[in-house]
Amino acid sequence: MAQQTQQLRERLAQIEDLNAASALLEWDQQTKMPPRGAELRAEAIGTVARISHELFVSGETGRLLEGAEAELDGDGESDDALLIRLVRRKWDKATKVPTDLAAELARAGSAGQEVWVAARRDNDFAAFTPYLERNLELARRYADCFDEFAVPYDALLDDYQPRMTAAQVTVLFDELKAELVPLIAEAARHTVDGSLLHAEVPAAAQRRLVDEIVELMGFDREGWRLDDTVHPFATSFGSSDVRITTRWDERYFPMALYGAMHETGHGLYEAGIGKELQRSPLGQGESLGMHESQSRLWENMVGRSRGFCGVLAPRISELFGSDFAALEPEALFRAVNRVSPSLIRVEADEATYGLHIVIRFELEQELLHGKLSVAELPEAWNQRYHDYLGIEVPTDADGVLQDVHWSAGLIGYFPTYALGNMIAGQLWARAHVELADLDEQIAAGELGGLRAWLRENIHRHGSRYTTDELLERVVGGPIAVEPFVAYLKDKLGDAYGVALT
Amino acid sequence: MAQQTQQLRERLAQIEDLNAASALLEWDQQTKMPPRGAELRAEAIGTVARISHELFVSGETGRLLEGAEAELDGDGESDDALLIRLVRRKWDKATKVPTDLAAELARAGSAGQEVWVAARRDNDFAAFTPYLERNLELARRYADCFDEFAVPYDALLDDYQPRMTAAQVTVLFDELKAELVPLIAEAARHTVDGSLLHAEVPAAAQRRLVDEIVELMGFDREGWRLDDTVHPFATSFGSSDVRITTRWDERYFPMALYGAMHETGHGLYEAGIGKELQRSPLGQGESLGMHESQSRLWENMVGRSRGFCGVLAPRISELFGSDFAALEPEALFRAVNRVSPSLIRVEADEATYGLHIVIRFELEQELLHGKLSVAELPEAWNQRYHDYLGIEVPTDADGVLQDVHWSAGLIGYFPTYALGNMIAGQLWARAHVELADLDEQIAAGELGGLRAWLRENIHRHGSRYTTDELLERVVGGPIAVEPFVAYLKDKLGDAYGVALT
Repeated sequence: MAQQTQQLRERLAQIEDLNAASALLEWDQQTKMPPRGAELRAEAIGTVARISHELFVSGETGRLLEGAEAELDGDGESDDALLIRLVRRKWDKATKVPTDLAAELARAGSAGQEVWVAARRDNDFAAFTPYLERNLELARRYADCFDEFAVPYDALLDDYQPRMTAAQVTVLFDELKAELVPLIAEAARHTVDGSLLHAEVPAAAQRRLVDEIVELMGFDREGWRLDDTVHPFATSFGSSDVRITTRWDERYFPMALYGAMHETGHGLYEAGIGKELQRSPLGQGESLGMHESQSRLWENMVGRSRGFCGVLAPRISELFGSDFAALEPEALFRAVNRVSPSLIRVEADEATYGLHIVIRFELEQELLHGKLSVAELPEAWNQRYHDYLGIEVPTDADGVLQDVHWSAGLIGYFPTYALGNMIAGQLWARAHVELADLDEQIAAGELGGLRAWLRENIHRHGSRYTTDELLERVVGGPIAVEPFVAYLKDKLGDAYGVALT
Repeated sequence: MAQQTQQLRERLAQIEDLNAASALLEWDQQTKMPPRGAELRAEAIGTVARISHELFVSGETGRLLEGAEAELDGDGESDDALLIRLVRRKWDKATKVPTDLAAELARAGSAGQEVWVAARRDNDFAAFTPYLERNLELARRYADCFDEFAVPYDALLDDYQPRMTAAQVTVLFDELKAELVPLIAEAARHTVDGSLLHAEVPAAAQRRLVDEIVELMGFDREGWRLDDTVHPFATSFGSSDVRITTRWDERYFPMALYGAMHETGHGLYEAGIGKELQRSPLGQGESLGMHESQSRLWENMVGRSRGFCGVLAPRISELFGSDFAALEPEALFRAVNRVSPSLIRVEADEATYGLHIVIRFELEQELLHGKLSVAELPEAWNQRYHDYLGIEVPTDADGVLQDVHWSAGLIGYFPTYALGNMIAGQLWARAHVELADLDEQIAAGELGGLRAWLRENIHRHGSRYTTDELLERVVGGPIAVEPFVAYLKDKLGDAYGVALT
């Protein structure tokens, strides 16, 4: 290998090692750390992140990057070429941000989260106001570091969904909204009984079911862990050490079951990345939208399918006790696909979920671009929940204060959730073309075929390709709304016993 | 605070943050990590350690250190002065070692450990030979970096027990050996029944006992964790996040009970360090000997005392089931203080333990100084076990291959275990002078008085003082053998019902 490229790779590998240390510090904080460890943990996370950032944006990295570019032999498809392309883009962006601003963004995000916890608990939006204003001001200053974006919001969105613009998202979301609103209205005309999901089930019984299901999906004790946490997440330290988390609600078992399936979807992505990409910026999942497509595909398209409900129902009958002895797969299928507008994003069904995201996407652009003040935000939030979902928001705690993102400075992040649904729809449709008996496999509890297909087409590539390039290879085009909507109409029509068009 | 001193402190704080990240990477590896995570974990640990080392030995640290020294106002007892003294000593030593040698020491130690695991399993000393020879060669090269030590061994010992020399240890160990050999011979003339320790006890019952006992000692769920592992250890990330570990043997419950008390002793040291020393090189336990004194004091002097056996016995009766229903405190006291020469250091009683250490101390000096070849080592080992402990070593796996230390390059480490016993003896004697009713407190299960005394006199100071300075403050003199021997004779004579002199 060319010398500069080799040196660049070694430097990037060390940065990835530091990022793995950061990720472990965070995993431990969310799953194992005793409460009083928090103060010093923040210092350790801050120091490791700062050193990693400094190593990356240093002039030495820039020189090695230039040298590696000069060593390229013109084959734009080699891993060296794809790595250098990715690193050049990240380096150019990161070096435009003054270190002090980067540190202040991290610090303000951390401070904002602490205030948010109390503000949500106390239903006190006013207490949160100055912190959100500060985060917005910093986000504007961050966006001002660049001149290659059409609007400030694009600079933020690009951190989570590289190369995507607000204008592109708007086109997709307008189409999504136009499809979802009548679909939700039609669903509202039918009654589905979801009460079986709220029977009491001890956590120990839920744990046995979850263990079985995630193993069916590909969880492997030699290379994975499943731990309890408050806000579930997945993380990994290379493809051979994948950590997923879940939480348990004894009055709503889908929380743990579908939460674990969701995180296992993320984990399968990380576990499937090619070994040759380890300790490299290529060795992680591509955009957040692509990552979310994997979690949502497994959680919803597999987990809430009629076929898989046929796998789940008998296991639930056996493990959950007499209340579930006579559980019919069809009753489970209908219950887990019940559409009902609700206040809380993370508890929303597949159809209404998209509207929760559209609302946030619209509001955060208006806030960032000065079209809406923080003081006006709660009223605007409530109005949009009324207009889009037909529900009234009783308190800010159940409204504008429900999500952590804005408090943490994560502005531009929300759209990736809905983009994930769209991508999942595209992959789901394509998988059905290439795996003709996919539904039968799933109904038989055989998930290896789908997993292998996703690994071959998505996972193994890590960050070699952009979202659009990956989708071009797999489905022949960019992110699109239609496959997701078609899937949803098909499944919900089936579950409701009506034709939804 | 003076400017250079402040900058030095900030730099050292970042190094401590990196060391905390390293310690977490290792804790996780020993307690949580799925097996396939090992390969990348070694890379992450190596990178974080290397960056921490580079930050420390850099010229910038040296310049700040000089500046801070110039800013000192002559008060040698201030925390600034004590910090600068410690850092100056560490920096002068660390900067004499070429980075390549430091990295090779770490790498060879890691490689040696892997080979050792297989060699011990296969009872194959020959497979281990080249790795031990390599570690010895590197240790000699390391010692050659310095000219301030009388013999090469002193350079190594100084890393674990700063400022102590082999000559000083030899004087202490000669005295210890002279006392222990007749004591062990006398004990051998008496029979003690230890069979009750080998009754079957389910791990779940042992866990309840261990939880109770470590909480009695000061384990606190808000700032501590107890986890399972293969080779028990304690670690901490500041005084508010202390992690102890233990292992469970269902045919020998003292393994978990006394192992956990031992590690809690280490943990109390870390938990007791003054908050003002956090994120500083002063904010950790002083020498390994001082650290081991804390673990051995709690495990043996408290845990195997007559008084505490009176606390343990009724809890064991209640928690361990019918086999233990009639357990007499006196029978427990005798059983846990049974003296019997044995092959394995970590399972040795308090009296014979010292001889296991003396043997290793003698042999590792002879190896390092070229008086004994690696090929001759097994025979020399076996001969010394015959001479000092009167037992024959059946296999290398139960002999020279039993400990990890030499495989990991930890040469010069063993003496600190026996020094820990001596220091514990000195502190135990002094605590009895200052806490007149200490034995009664312990017999009543009240351990807070001893914990507070240790915190006030030892723990809170972290690494402010050297071992000798600390001992001078607390017991009025340097490390000494006599108090430990007196304690041992007193307790064993009591347990055996004879006068041991």
